[in-house]
Amino acid sequence: MQVYLDHAATTKPYDEVIEIMGEVALSQYANPSSLHSLGLEAEKLLKKSRKTIADAIHAKPEQIIFTSGGTESDSTAIYSAFPRSKDARGRRFMHSDIEHPAVRVCGTQLLEEGADVLRIPVDSDGLVDLGFISTHVGNTDKLDLISVMHVNNEVSTVEPIGEIGKILSAYTNDRNTQPIFHVDAVQSFMKHKIDVTLPEWSRVDMISMSGHKIGGPRGIGALYVRDLSKIKPFMIGGGQERGYRSGTENLPAIVGFSKAVEIRARNLQSNYEHVTEIKKYFYEKLLQNLGYIVEPQNHTVSIPQSISLSTSQSASEAIEVRLNGPSLGEPYASPYLIDLSFIGVPGEILLHELESRNVYISTGSACSSNTKSKNNQVLKAIGVDLKGQDSAVRFSFAPDTTIGEIDYAVAQITEAVETLSVVLKFAGVNKR
Amino acid sequence: MQVYLDHAATTKPYDEVIEIMGEVALSQYANPSSLHSLGLEAEKLLKKSRKTIADAIHAKPEQIIFTSGGTESDSTAIYSAFPRSKDARGRRFMHSDIEHPAVRVCGTQLLEEGADVLRIPVDSDGLVDLGFISTHVGNTDKLDLISVMHVNNEVSTVEPIGEIGKILSAYTNDRNTQPIFHVDAVQSFMKHKIDVTLPEWSRVDMISMSGHKIGGPRGIGALYVRDLSKIKPFMIGGGQERGYRSGTENLPAIVGFSKAVEIRARNLQSNYEHVTEIKKYFYEKLLQNLGYIVEPQNHTVSIPQSISLSTSQSASEAIEVRLNGPSLGEPYASPYLIDLSFIGVPGEILLHELESRNVYISTGSACSSNTKSKNNQVLKAIGVDLKGQDSAVRFSFAPDTTIGEIDYAVAQITEAVETLSVVLKFAGVNKR
Repeated sequence: MQVYLDHAATTKPYDEVIEIMGEVALSQYANPSSLHSLGLEAEKLLKKSRKTIADAIHAKPEQIIFTSGGTESDSTAIYSAFPRSKDARGRRFMHSDIEHPAVRVCGTQLLEEGADVLRIPVDSDGLVDLGFISTHVGNTDKLDLISVMHVNNEVSTVEPIGEIGKILSAYTNDRNTQPIFHVDAVQSFMKHKIDVTLPEWSRVDMISMSGHKIGGPRGIGALYVRDLSKIKPFMIGGGQERGYRSGTENLPAIVGFSKAVEIRARNLQSNYEHVTEIKKYFYEKLLQNLGYIVEPQNHTVSIPQSISLSTSQSASEAIEVRLNGPSLGEPYASPYLIDLSFIGVPGEILLHELESRNVYISTGSACSSNTKSKNNQVLKAIGVDLKGQDSAVRFSFAPDTTIGEIDYAVAQITEAVETLSVVLKFAGVNKR
Repeated sequence: MQVYLDHAATTKPYDEVIEIMGEVALSQYANPSSLHSLGLEAEKLLKKSRKTIADAIHAKPEQIIFTSGGTESDSTAIYSAFPRSKDARGRRFMHSDIEHPAVRVCGTQLLEEGADVLRIPVDSDGLVDLGFISTHVGNTDKLDLISVMHVNNEVSTVEPIGEIGKILSAYTNDRNTQPIFHVDAVQSFMKHKIDVTLPEWSRVDMISMSGHKIGGPRGIGALYVRDLSKIKPFMIGGGQERGYRSGTENLPAIVGFSKAVEIRARNLQSNYEHVTEIKKYFYEKLLQNLGYIVEPQNHTVSIPQSISLSTSQSASEAIEVRLNGPSLGEPYASPYLIDLSFIGVPGEILLHELESRNVYISTGSACSSNTKSKNNQVLKAIGVDLKGQDSAVRFSFAPDTTIGEIDYAVAQITEAVETLSVVLKFAGVNKR
């Protein structure tokens, strides 16, 4: 058996997605910007796909811009508020302390350019500090952009988008003087409900989406833009996407993306319920296997959440497991992923032990793994200590993850953690 | 029969490309940035593909950065010299007057930001004015970036890359103080020989390449960067591509791209010879069909090149055909495309007439068709008058274009042009 629990990094595309991409690539190979009828047929397919993406979040087709992926969507949104032509000095950008690097690194760059960049602190559950936002939003303190992700890619927190919107709307009714509100929804799109016509989303100006996190293709993403006058093109040139994003339209990937959205849209709610069940089953079974007696109700202890429930083994022998992020029962915990620290077992060692057992997981996010930083920014931000950071691993689920796969994975994780824990204790590793 | 002569806009991907993309998407779906072994296998494929692209231009693998396409490659190159963090005011960018919009529009933006942007004039063959470059390059007039395309996408001109390099090297030996020399090779990559180890290319710092112009997939391109210290990342975030280009690696497209390169590399020279034959055959047969007596040797009349050879019809009845761009025999004419004006027949009307006859061509470049500008920048730059611009159409060929296809296309074009010419003259259309 091979169990892939790294769906937050990327997903296997649906067979239907691969199939239709091949078909479109071979039959609709003309450039949608070409004037001839082959190009027009391609243009029709493009239009249909745009409507599918728009419908999924109840937007209008013209509010959807296709990009090369989540990273480009984020850059497009952020640099719409901070275009090259405008001096960044003294202008203000606020983003949560646990944003994806695609947002965070733009913040770092804007800081170097002289912008005021404020990082919104988060609590131990990863929730942004609404008081901080209130304090720093106002007529005197003009804010140009605020970026808060919908679902965090490491600790599963669902951020209070509606509450942030209310704060932004409170100080002025004139939407034109309000900051651009950008939401990176790469981890929530087609997993959680997003409806831009609902009050909760009414204040959001731009939403980043990605194809390959939901069984769609790589290299394709989208940006929802409520008011097109607020967007400044990031990729400029031939004027495709009505001038908002240049570069030959990647039609096969766009159609593949819309196919994945179509598939996910059919079962959004039942997928959510299934994955909720999967996460709960995974967590409880794993802790039981490791000797804990798991209470049926969810624990609400403060984080770092040492789940030091009474164990069947003696306390000294038990492996300390910490849940990084909100408890499973919280409405603001995404069921699609879970981050755990097996104290004393370095995450990277556990990851490799598990891969030898055909279970694939990650430490932090795949994107962070390039930075080589030992320090996990997100875990640090929610107050996880170095011990917890070192031993953190992320498990992420898909709608087609089965109980059988979880049974196998849990058995392997239990064995791996127990073996490594003893070996490492004996070897004196992980003393810092 | 259906004849697609719009290969400069985009190409049909090779079956092998579609096949391998599907395989990779389904079997190597892990994120190459993931630490686990599935990710490592993906990383290996990525490495192999990078080497294929590098080998094709005799570069080192580490000098190749994957992007989402030609447009992003161009932006990455240009903004490496003009990063956001550096005030553009007073800094200097020089590009040819017939660059692709992906370069030209960046120039417009930099101009708005206060940069000095110089457009290198071209002659009636589309060749850049080397004297202009010499005059404006020097120790007193510090130039930061020069961008000249290898092969023009409308009029087929092959620019003198080596000569430009010599001029840039002449005024100082210190490469660090010389401007960045960027070449957009989107229309020449895997069609013309590019070898960065040859003297001709030795002064070039960055080269833009694209997948979908050579039977590869959409949404993928590459940038060759001679000295990585000169590149400033354009897409920032997760730090993929060793920090030079963020965003989850589009592995299926990268592998598909390298497959297309592999296929084209096998027959680069014979493809070139075949397409040279095709272009010549097309041009001569078409003119003969239209009543011209074509001389075996190539004409070297000045441009606009009214091919007013003696016709079998009376001069007043003959349709005036103009070749926009260098004569076929010139060593600086790419055989992969040809731009013609059938005076009196608007290009767009001809295009639609031809599509009804299953022959697919374009007016100008597909990328320009989004701008809705009646004025064709490239043709204007080489001195084509409005009459010539209005009636210009581009035919572009592929290595698998056959003589049979050309026979069919030429017959259709002849009929279309003759019919339209009479109808339009009668209707009094096209008086301006």
